[in-house]
Amino acid sequence: MMTDNKIVLGLDFGSTAVRVLTMDLLTGKVITTIDQAYEEGTFGIFTSPENDLLARQKPTDFICSMRKVLRKAKLQNEAIGIKMSSVAGIGVDATGSTPLPVTREMLPLSDLEEFKNNLNAYAWMWKDHSSYKEARHITETIKKHRPQFLDKIGGAYSSEWFWAKILHCKNSDASVFDAAFTWMEISDFIPATLSGCNDALTVKRNICAAGHKALYNTEWEGFPDQQFIEKVDPSLVRILQTLPEQTFSIATKSGTLSKEWADEFGMSEGIPIGMGILDAHAGAIGSGIKDGSLVKIIGTSTCDLVLSDLNSGKSNLKGVASVAEESVLPGNYGIETGQSAVGDILDWFVKAVLNNEKTHNDLTVEANKLRVGSSGLIALDWNNGNRSILSDPMLSGLLIGQHLQTKDFEIYRALIESTAFGARTIIEDMERQGVIINEVVNCGGITHKNTLFMQIYADVINKPMKIAASNETVALGAAIIGAHAAFKEENSPTSFHDLQDRSCKILDKVYYPMEENVRIYNDLYNLYKKLHDAFGIEGTKIEMYGVMKELIQIKNKATKK
Amino acid sequence: MMTDNKIVLGLDFGSTAVRVLTMDLLTGKVITTIDQAYEEGTFGIFTSPENDLLARQKPTDFICSMRKVLRKAKLQNEAIGIKMSSVAGIGVDATGSTPLPVTREMLPLSDLEEFKNNLNAYAWMWKDHSSYKEARHITETIKKHRPQFLDKIGGAYSSEWFWAKILHCKNSDASVFDAAFTWMEISDFIPATLSGCNDALTVKRNICAAGHKALYNTEWEGFPDQQFIEKVDPSLVRILQTLPEQTFSIATKSGTLSKEWADEFGMSEGIPIGMGILDAHAGAIGSGIKDGSLVKIIGTSTCDLVLSDLNSGKSNLKGVASVAEESVLPGNYGIETGQSAVGDILDWFVKAVLNNEKTHNDLTVEANKLRVGSSGLIALDWNNGNRSILSDPMLSGLLIGQHLQTKDFEIYRALIESTAFGARTIIEDMERQGVIINEVVNCGGITHKNTLFMQIYADVINKPMKIAASNETVALGAAIIGAHAAFKEENSPTSFHDLQDRSCKILDKVYYPMEENVRIYNDLYNLYKKLHDAFGIEGTKIEMYGVMKELIQIKNKATKK
Repeated sequence: MMTDNKIVLGLDFGSTAVRVLTMDLLTGKVITTIDQAYEEGTFGIFTSPENDLLARQKPTDFICSMRKVLRKAKLQNEAIGIKMSSVAGIGVDATGSTPLPVTREMLPLSDLEEFKNNLNAYAWMWKDHSSYKEARHITETIKKHRPQFLDKIGGAYSSEWFWAKILHCKNSDASVFDAAFTWMEISDFIPATLSGCNDALTVKRNICAAGHKALYNTEWEGFPDQQFIEKVDPSLVRILQTLPEQTFSIATKSGTLSKEWADEFGMSEGIPIGMGILDAHAGAIGSGIKDGSLVKIIGTSTCDLVLSDLNSGKSNLKGVASVAEESVLPGNYGIETGQSAVGDILDWFVKAVLNNEKTHNDLTVEANKLRVGSSGLIALDWNNGNRSILSDPMLSGLLIGQHLQTKDFEIYRALIESTAFGARTIIEDMERQGVIINEVVNCGGITHKNTLFMQIYADVINKPMKIAASNETVALGAAIIGAHAAFKEENSPTSFHDLQDRSCKILDKVYYPMEENVRIYNDLYNLYKKLHDAFGIEGTKIEMYGVMKELIQIKNKATKK
Repeated sequence: MMTDNKIVLGLDFGSTAVRVLTMDLLTGKVITTIDQAYEEGTFGIFTSPENDLLARQKPTDFICSMRKVLRKAKLQNEAIGIKMSSVAGIGVDATGSTPLPVTREMLPLSDLEEFKNNLNAYAWMWKDHSSYKEARHITETIKKHRPQFLDKIGGAYSSEWFWAKILHCKNSDASVFDAAFTWMEISDFIPATLSGCNDALTVKRNICAAGHKALYNTEWEGFPDQQFIEKVDPSLVRILQTLPEQTFSIATKSGTLSKEWADEFGMSEGIPIGMGILDAHAGAIGSGIKDGSLVKIIGTSTCDLVLSDLNSGKSNLKGVASVAEESVLPGNYGIETGQSAVGDILDWFVKAVLNNEKTHNDLTVEANKLRVGSSGLIALDWNNGNRSILSDPMLSGLLIGQHLQTKDFEIYRALIESTAFGARTIIEDMERQGVIINEVVNCGGITHKNTLFMQIYADVINKPMKIAASNETVALGAAIIGAHAAFKEENSPTSFHDLQDRSCKILDKVYYPMEENVRIYNDLYNLYKKLHDAFGIEGTKIEMYGVMKELIQIKNKATKK
């Protein structure tokens, strides 16, 4: 068969490292994986002592790290007799919204001498919240002039997203704004770089980032209309005019590998490069997402993805998530939601508070011995703001119920629980609006490592928790996109569903809710919701008096058993 | 002069140790101090794994520890040529409300074989909150039938107090309740023991504990009337009938030293023993309290004491404190208020959360470098409930504003600030009701050791903070009471004011408010008050939405400077 011995690569640009997964095209089996941490800033991230909200990444760091990891992958594959000339397709995913300013010739502004040390000319990392004022302004403009946008973006435009970041650049650093021909997500910039593209106007942009982050939707014929953008800020019109009329799902390739890149790594010029996609969406594909599954990608933050049929499904949702056409798989709406910090909150507690005096494992072992409710603690999971439901970065953490005997591991458990409550809030909100969730598939390191974490999620959410078997669902998803492009190129088109079936497995261990725990967590969840609404929703006045008392009652009941 | 070479002893029964201070009677100078930790339980305290609220102490532990410390004091004094036969008077203070059940013959029930391991037969330590339901019932009964009591007890009867504890014993362990002839504060039990008293009915009880903890007031002719006690619980009438008609201030002696105790330590039989007093009140005397001073005794918890003239002063106060006649100095009302945990909250964070990985000093040094408001954190100081204003043990700690960069020392500082906000709430509430506070005198170990702590208090409370020079103001107060009794016995009465003038000094270092800090703390205090009222006052509905946002604004402003 013609695909015999062919391989595909999945290139995954995460928050702190880039990874390459090599997959056998015919069988869908993973052959090798390798990664390379970014080397500039701190794990690739530049922060500012004056502004906690800022997080930037250097475009050349992405490219240099990609070169390094491809060299490593080449060596690794060759060591087991697999040649890079067998690569038949490449899929690429990246974080987002992580836009960077580029010249018409596709040069990142930070490559220019005058901007090389200017963080505003770097890529504005997804978790950069410095544009919160601009996000608020865009939300207000939408509410006033284009309310139809609201149900695609969860009711508020986020400070993490494309237009807010560009507008904040214009407001805070005109030199960069003026020098930029256009802005581009790295999920478009990387595939374009691999294709050797040197005209920003010809870059095919991916519908995933455009739909979820930049207000692209075919219901209003693409990116927002010029009148609307003028109302946001007339300076942005110039940027709007550089954006294409159409964007593309992963059913289409973004381009083909350039001679330069092909030669450097011994690959063939002209092999297809899949359309870019956001990393979480790739992870959902690599976790085997299908109609009715919620895929939770749990890491430093979480991203939750749900599919909904293009014909019959939900395309408008209030207050929970962003909805974009074909942002995950063709033929479906992709519903994206999530939490701004999960692993990050636990890491914060271990590193910044406990100074690594105990490990995650130490604390988990101790926390695992606790009875549900016995700490009397409850926390809000907003140490990095709230991404879904409230869509508000100007929130913070809250811990309540501590007394003079409260132990470190009780706080640790309360922090895990807070993230589970946050997850439940999101799921309940979607279900209330008619989104059907038949199964929850979890992926990410913590889901394999921390049984306490997973059991708490099952008990709080009251659904069985399945776990994707792969440790690399994101890179696996990218490789599946590469495989899809390769099969299509070879006139042997194969459905994403079939490609997923071959590659995406679920662990035998499924976490089932335990009735007794579910009951107690329901009580705690009611208190979480009370705090959530009181501190998170403007105009809410709720009596808080009972909260501490109920926590003590729950604690006493749990302790006495 | 006849008092030449005479000495007096101040015996101070604290929470975890008993201390003896030897004072020169003529000059008022401190000669020696020595202490002895209690040896049973954990530092003298018995707790229960099933009930966090419980804290008990063994009466024999008090007596054995007193013997040990008196032996040590004897050796120490003799080593410098001072004989115990020179002791001319003894003052005694103790924690409270710390009542214990005794037989008619003054035997603690826990000395009986059948009760020796029964914690309910021990002394119920001041910080025992297990009687919270009974306290609520007593408060309700007062509101319904004796509302005039309310303004003497800060609007609510506390779970820490005499009647609540006895009632809880009756409700939870009838065997102990039935076997007790009466219940007695250890501030009465110890002086009676030293006098060799063996009839509980003849013990002179002190007005300080009776007035602040047991509803004694001459406005209603002593302890509460029988009809009221019947409404609380008819079983308590039997206990009421064992209480005396009159109680006494420190102007009166409680008795004289028995032959047995005198012989054991080489003292003279018949020397006067001052009336017992609560430890905080002794500390106020030892800090030089006078009309218009607020004395803050800052330790694991705090006790605040203010004097108010018996003729012109405030005798009724709403919602803040308990008021008792002559409970500190004769001729004045004593207003007692305070916070259930101060040092305890900081200790909790260092020990239970940080596992002693850093010391108080480490954290203070780091916290001292922070600009006011820059952490974006605020906390409620309720990890051990709230004693004054809300008088509610069913409250808990709260920390708000934490984000992914929040450091341990920022939390530590926020916890110090929370206790300062708690202190300000109390002071403002008293001033609002017309109590005059001309100066604040602080005492307790932390006031000498922690300059950050004291500066925060000055800035938050916006008053200069003076510090009592003595490290032993409580034992010093007890010795002053002993001296007063000795002078009176020798027909050379001396006023407490004069005795204080000789012995009570203020440190040269006074902490003055810094204008810039005061301004920022005013903003933070408004947020503290919002949380305080929302979580602490039944029926309150306040919009909480702005709290996190204001904290972030304050933080941003403080960080940018």
